[in-house]
Amino acid sequence: MYAITGNDLQLTEVPDPVPAPDEVLIDVVAAGVNRADVQQRAGHYPPPAGASEILGLEVSGRIAAIGAQVTGWSIGDEVCALLSGGGYAQRVAAPAAQLLPIPAGVSLRDAAALPEVACTVTSNLLMAARLQPGETLLIHGGSSGIGTHAIQVAKALGARVAVTARSPEKLERCAELGADVLIDYSYEDFVAALAPPHHHGADVILDVVGGGYLSRNLDVLAVNGRLVIIGLLGGRTGELDLGKLLAKRGSILGTTLRSRPAHGPGSKAEVVAATLKGTWPLIAATAGSGQPGAHTVVPVIDSVFPLAEAAAALDHLTTGSVIGKIVLDVS
Amino acid sequence: MYAITGNDLQLTEVPDPVPAPDEVLIDVVAAGVNRADVQQRAGHYPPPAGASEILGLEVSGRIAAIGAQVTGWSIGDEVCALLSGGGYAQRVAAPAAQLLPIPAGVSLRDAAALPEVACTVTSNLLMAARLQPGETLLIHGGSSGIGTHAIQVAKALGARVAVTARSPEKLERCAELGADVLIDYSYEDFVAALAPPHHHGADVILDVVGGGYLSRNLDVLAVNGRLVIIGLLGGRTGELDLGKLLAKRGSILGTTLRSRPAHGPGSKAEVVAATLKGTWPLIAATAGSGQPGAHTVVPVIDSVFPLAEAAAALDHLTTGSVIGKIVLDVS
Repeated sequence: MYAITGNDLQLTEVPDPVPAPDEVLIDVVAAGVNRADVQQRAGHYPPPAGASEILGLEVSGRIAAIGAQVTGWSIGDEVCALLSGGGYAQRVAAPAAQLLPIPAGVSLRDAAALPEVACTVTSNLLMAARLQPGETLLIHGGSSGIGTHAIQVAKALGARVAVTARSPEKLERCAELGADVLIDYSYEDFVAALAPPHHHGADVILDVVGGGYLSRNLDVLAVNGRLVIIGLLGGRTGELDLGKLLAKRGSILGTTLRSRPAHGPGSKAEVVAATLKGTWPLIAATAGSGQPGAHTVVPVIDSVFPLAEAAAALDHLTTGSVIGKIVLDVS
Repeated sequence: MYAITGNDLQLTEVPDPVPAPDEVLIDVVAAGVNRADVQQRAGHYPPPAGASEILGLEVSGRIAAIGAQVTGWSIGDEVCALLSGGGYAQRVAAPAAQLLPIPAGVSLRDAAALPEVACTVTSNLLMAARLQPGETLLIHGGSSGIGTHAIQVAKALGARVAVTARSPEKLERCAELGADVLIDYSYEDFVAALAPPHHHGADVILDVVGGGYLSRNLDVLAVNGRLVIIGLLGGRTGELDLGKLLAKRGSILGTTLRSRPAHGPGSKAEVVAATLKGTWPLIAATAGSGQPGAHTVVPVIDSVFPLAEAAAALDHLTTGSVIGKIVLDVS
């Protein structure tokens, strides 16, 4: 098969992966592009032990072969999958516990944009932060792949959503997806934007900035608030004022998806199962239900590149102009 | 009635409190002494709005009068109560939602030592950290009032318990209460003490030190670990390495009991209800059950002072030699 390999991200012929007894082999139709791929290419984010050296944390495609221990799936089934790596390729082996069916109304290609964002949003907003209807969620980077998905899921769950982004165009797209409060961080302070009397701060914050926002995130956090940090784009360390944290009875939760083990407590299998139960039914299923506040959760695709142009796709992601997800077409 | 008032903590005649419609009036038999009382006396911990200026966050006694909206309690009932203040007195008004019955086998006087520690341990170990059987709990200050109670509750729940304390005598008392791993912090490093191969760090940490321990607490935290900070004896701020937090998928939870509102989400009423359901049945009820790992949770009383000697009781608490709780006898 052909796969993207090497630092120059060239399409190269490599051996087909061999699925383990608890895995399936997928003929890849499309692969999602993630910021982690950019970091891995730059050498900052080595794959976990045992994972493929090939980039790619999610794909969609058709099952081509099934390991001996796998039940519930058949050859030819259309699926998408959360991976530990290996997605930038014509074929990939994926643990059966990390497969998800293609939601009704979503194309097989677009479904490649869903596993990472859906599992990230499920594990952080539902499992870790336990976001409740009526609560205010602040999403830093609302126009990112995770942001655009989180806006929709939070709205479908009945939360109020505030987003930060850097341009009117990005904020407008966030508003179309359901965001209630739009904050252009190039000139607006998000703490002031969510201050009383119109707001009560953020009950939950989904943050990819880390150290650089720690102090202000604590300032904007509401009583009983949960600050969920899933990225460190703004630095790895920050000074923590525990007095503020205790006074607000707040919590700071740090999570990553890729470092989770395949099985057991906190595993990818657990997250995928929770996603299937918690947020997967929101995708498309809420469309036209006519219920007040019902929102359709759809994949938000910025652009599609051929697999051979993976390098250009990663370069595009780093421009900062992307809204939603980039997908590689492998068909 | 007589109560302790003023900076010199003199017994003074003051008007009886008048219970609100949702409160009861308690003839106090004993009052528990807390570190917050020392801080309030020193001017560092002002009572929340609406609370009595009189010290005292918990009492035991008999119900002397009942507000019009209160149901389920009768005059003469023996109770203990979580208070927002006012306990160092012959009578105190307490919200009915903050009353607890006297557990079987516990004297009315000793029960005054239970509400603060039981509600603190319930709200932090059960509600916030969701301590699970088989997990390792690290308690900083294992011989404190909270520590001695937390050891017993955690053992009754089937957790493994490690404690830090400063003397062989204190550690021996912790061991008698069920602690499995004893760490004398005057010469032992708790990170090393809980390191592999014999341990896997701490799944949950109950910490009263705060800033001064933040970095090492993060080091000792296990994957999926929860650092629960309930005091800032070692400083209010610390540098937080979010890289470590994310890699461990850890969380930092800050809570206080006194600042909680009377009603609503996260309220004292909610904590008291959870205590009644979650940890109150463990007190005495596990005695002699013969089940493996069954532990009796009993009040641990360091010493009893007459109410008139409240100043001496607070001075004794600050010596650092106290094991368990100090109680003021008001009868």
